[in-house]
Amino acid sequence: MKKLSLFSPGTIANISCGFDVLGVALDEVGDVMHFEVTDKPGWQISEIKGADLPLDVAKNTAGVAGLSLLNTYKSQGGDPPGFSLMIEKNIKAGSGIGSSAASASGAVWGLNELLNRPFSPLELVSFAMEGEKLASGVAHADNVAPGIFGGFTLIRSYEPLDIVALPCPDDLYAVVLHPQIEIKTQDARSILKTQLSLRQATTQWGNLGGLIAGLYTNDYGLISRSLVDVVVEPIRSLLIPGFDELKKTMLESGALGAGISGSGPSVFGLAQGNDQARSIAQAIEINYRQWGIDFEVHCAKINTQGIKMIQA
Amino acid sequence: MKKLSLFSPGTIANISCGFDVLGVALDEVGDVMHFEVTDKPGWQISEIKGADLPLDVAKNTAGVAGLSLLNTYKSQGGDPPGFSLMIEKNIKAGSGIGSSAASASGAVWGLNELLNRPFSPLELVSFAMEGEKLASGVAHADNVAPGIFGGFTLIRSYEPLDIVALPCPDDLYAVVLHPQIEIKTQDARSILKTQLSLRQATTQWGNLGGLIAGLYTNDYGLISRSLVDVVVEPIRSLLIPGFDELKKTMLESGALGAGISGSGPSVFGLAQGNDQARSIAQAIEINYRQWGIDFEVHCAKINTQGIKMIQA
Repeated sequence: MKKLSLFSPGTIANISCGFDVLGVALDEVGDVMHFEVTDKPGWQISEIKGADLPLDVAKNTAGVAGLSLLNTYKSQGGDPPGFSLMIEKNIKAGSGIGSSAASASGAVWGLNELLNRPFSPLELVSFAMEGEKLASGVAHADNVAPGIFGGFTLIRSYEPLDIVALPCPDDLYAVVLHPQIEIKTQDARSILKTQLSLRQATTQWGNLGGLIAGLYTNDYGLISRSLVDVVVEPIRSLLIPGFDELKKTMLESGALGAGISGSGPSVFGLAQGNDQARSIAQAIEINYRQWGIDFEVHCAKINTQGIKMIQA
Repeated sequence: MKKLSLFSPGTIANISCGFDVLGVALDEVGDVMHFEVTDKPGWQISEIKGADLPLDVAKNTAGVAGLSLLNTYKSQGGDPPGFSLMIEKNIKAGSGIGSSAASASGAVWGLNELLNRPFSPLELVSFAMEGEKLASGVAHADNVAPGIFGGFTLIRSYEPLDIVALPCPDDLYAVVLHPQIEIKTQDARSILKTQLSLRQATTQWGNLGGLIAGLYTNDYGLISRSLVDVVVEPIRSLLIPGFDELKKTMLESGALGAGISGSGPSVFGLAQGNDQARSIAQAIEINYRQWGIDFEVHCAKINTQGIKMIQA
């Protein structure tokens, strides 16, 4: 294989009760990446469409993730050919639906395919985390893991890295509203309290347990009751104009639950079925106009496959 | 039905990463309770064998739980006959494997059967919690719920009460060592810190998620890796003589994980298969003698049925 094109999905991290441990991949919303094996050795990014990002692989999320993979490959005695990458960015940077993660995970996934899969999905996640570290200062896995594993993923542990791919109902959709304001991941993290009460913590892990049980049993009611965040949302939501009303509108339109996507500013809702998702999307389209902020609404099925090959 | 005898199991609450939200029922270890419908109206405890506990229903865990059920039954227009209860206590009070819970849940389960099941399992849990409140001052559900639902149960939420019955592998066993020292539940709770770090909390809920996923998928490796408690065990274990070495002995003998049962002093280990469980039991029988403390060792299959009827 000398050429490869792939779709690298947007992802929602945290998912209410799953702060820092859960993420989920989306269909339809994502970047497209074109790889080519080149005669010239090395790893280069030839072009990025749709975003003003550095082409220098040492300064680019996809580039750094790819370097991490290629350096490991070489350290294990591999002799890789040259690779060139062209990216069509469709996910806006700073949106809160894993723009940097889509680049990082797509880069390592594509390189791994072209090298005939020397690395496991878990190893790919650890390479992609290097890209996340460049982007946000923290090597978190909750966006890159669902891209690579597909569907819902649980980061059970970081040391050692342990990722659990979770099932989900067939008919689960996400609606995301992205208010086009900037919230830096670092800022969103720095406003969090470093301590919480034991009661908050037990409430949160009860809900996380309920959400995971609901995903295993296709129990929409349990999923819905468990989509509660008593720790992070009460603080971070203050940074998102109109969050409370937006969440209320989603729930009144039938969302199973709603919350902050990643570290924001995007707000997500989960829905049972496409019709429900579309009607939530319509309701928030109308409702959010009052804030005078540009915004986009995405409506997507949960993507259980993750990154996927597409025809070039 | 005029008479009924039942087995009400011992239970392990908390289960490492599941503080305040998880519990599991045991086979073999448990109390036996004999109910009789009487001509004389009212609810009375005629005899308790094996423990020095009050017969006054208003002062007894089983009595109070039963009163809660009967009062609700009457408030809904029911006209119950009289009931008499005889209890054979096999679970020692203060052992940390749900002695009070076995009495409370057995009482309401038995009465519900004799009344032709007017109440749901969830309602039975809420009645039994009244017994727990009498015993420990806190109306917790993590021992009574696994008795009533069987197997592993998750208390997703207390307000409203929401309980999820979890599956588990067929071949899962528990070993429990009960050092016969007294740790009051209230004391074990009062030494806990009321605050924890966000990092501790996310570590804990990652493990809880992993444990639940492992139970759904029969993944003993994942169950084992997830049986970690970074919040409560480091503090409460100080109250249990020889805890660290006991845990180490269990793990070295092949336990999937080990931790404090409920609020202690009992220490549990989980094991894959009866042989593994027996060899863990043997190892700790020998090892724990050094402390000069009387102790009992129980070895039991996980009881997925919970409370069960037995031949009178």
